[in-house]
Amino acid sequence: MDEKTKRFRRQMDFLLELDKVKLIGRQTYLADGSRFENDAEHSWHAAVMAVVLSEYFPKADLAKTMAMMLLHDVVEIYAGDTYCYDTVGYQDKDAREMAAAEKIYGLLPPDQREEMMALWQEFEAGQTEEAKFCAILDRVQPTMLNHAQGGRSWVEHGIYKEQVEKRNAATFQGPDVIAAYMREIIDTAYEKGVLK
Amino acid sequence: MDEKTKRFRRQMDFLLELDKVKLIGRQTYLADGSRFENDAEHSWHAAVMAVVLSEYFPKADLAKTMAMMLLHDVVEIYAGDTYCYDTVGYQDKDAREMAAAEKIYGLLPPDQREEMMALWQEFEAGQTEEAKFCAILDRVQPTMLNHAQGGRSWVEHGIYKEQVEKRNAATFQGPDVIAAYMREIIDTAYEKGVLK
Repeated sequence: MDEKTKRFRRQMDFLLELDKVKLIGRQTYLADGSRFENDAEHSWHAAVMAVVLSEYFPKADLAKTMAMMLLHDVVEIYAGDTYCYDTVGYQDKDAREMAAAEKIYGLLPPDQREEMMALWQEFEAGQTEEAKFCAILDRVQPTMLNHAQGGRSWVEHGIYKEQVEKRNAATFQGPDVIAAYMREIIDTAYEKGVLK
Repeated sequence: MDEKTKRFRRQMDFLLELDKVKLIGRQTYLADGSRFENDAEHSWHAAVMAVVLSEYFPKADLAKTMAMMLLHDVVEIYAGDTYCYDTVGYQDKDAREMAAAEKIYGLLPPDQREEMMALWQEFEAGQTEEAKFCAILDRVQPTMLNHAQGGRSWVEHGIYKEQVEKRNAATFQGPDVIAAYMREIIDTAYEKGVLK
């Protein structure tokens, strides 16, 4: 097998392994409440949001944002999904996810492994325009779905308003329309007793 | 409500409606065979493939390709998924999908409705570099999954080799490594009696 074919086969091995992202369940219900969504669906939805809402983030490079969004959760193939209000799970989340990243991105040719690892670490660090855009989408997407179900996920887990505000702090630093959208959802949920 | 907020709310209405893409089942099994995949998962996977395989399509704009890939199947919310070897379903596929596109993209502000309709029509026409890239990914992704299941979907539908070759013709016009990959899968399936 020539080098070009070997390279392509490594890329396809990586892409096939990524199929497992579809098996990682989340704690967010679909808008119709029929079941939980999975990481592939969440990543697809958030990447579409990047396209539709890009006008509010003019400094972010859209291709980079979309790639970051599509791949931000693939480490969960090996590390599992940690529910955002699971304080115990968060204690070793970073170590689990770094080991997982090395495993999954290690399937790629070396240059792409470095590139994809860097993209994921940039997302995790949350400092660049693209990482900030993604951090906001990563919160707005499940909030939108949870709101469509009357805050069901918050009720089932007995979540406090302060927890939601802390978790979604990045969205309040974002564009006005997004901050106002999140504020209205959270305040309404609290008034209705959906959030404690 | 001011104009800016109205615009944002239309965008969010569109994004919430897109949640239904997750409910559109396809005829392709996940790589582990546990269930069929849905359109959101397929679109996510194909968009990730665009990122990883972009080096083979240097003339295609990656951001545009990704957006096209993420949104190429959303018309199926109202038009349904037409199995690629369903000749009856294909007779009125275009009319059903055009009506669906007008409905789903009509949720957006007018400028974005035009932009997204144009992007989808460009995909359907298949003439630009991005549309050709997407057409190939749209075929390689399910072929990869079906191959992981030993061609199960072909067996269950009693598909002929010639049907698969016709359906995947675009991939043989693509980069050598992709054409060779598809050729090997199809030929092996035929030799094993998986394809008639």
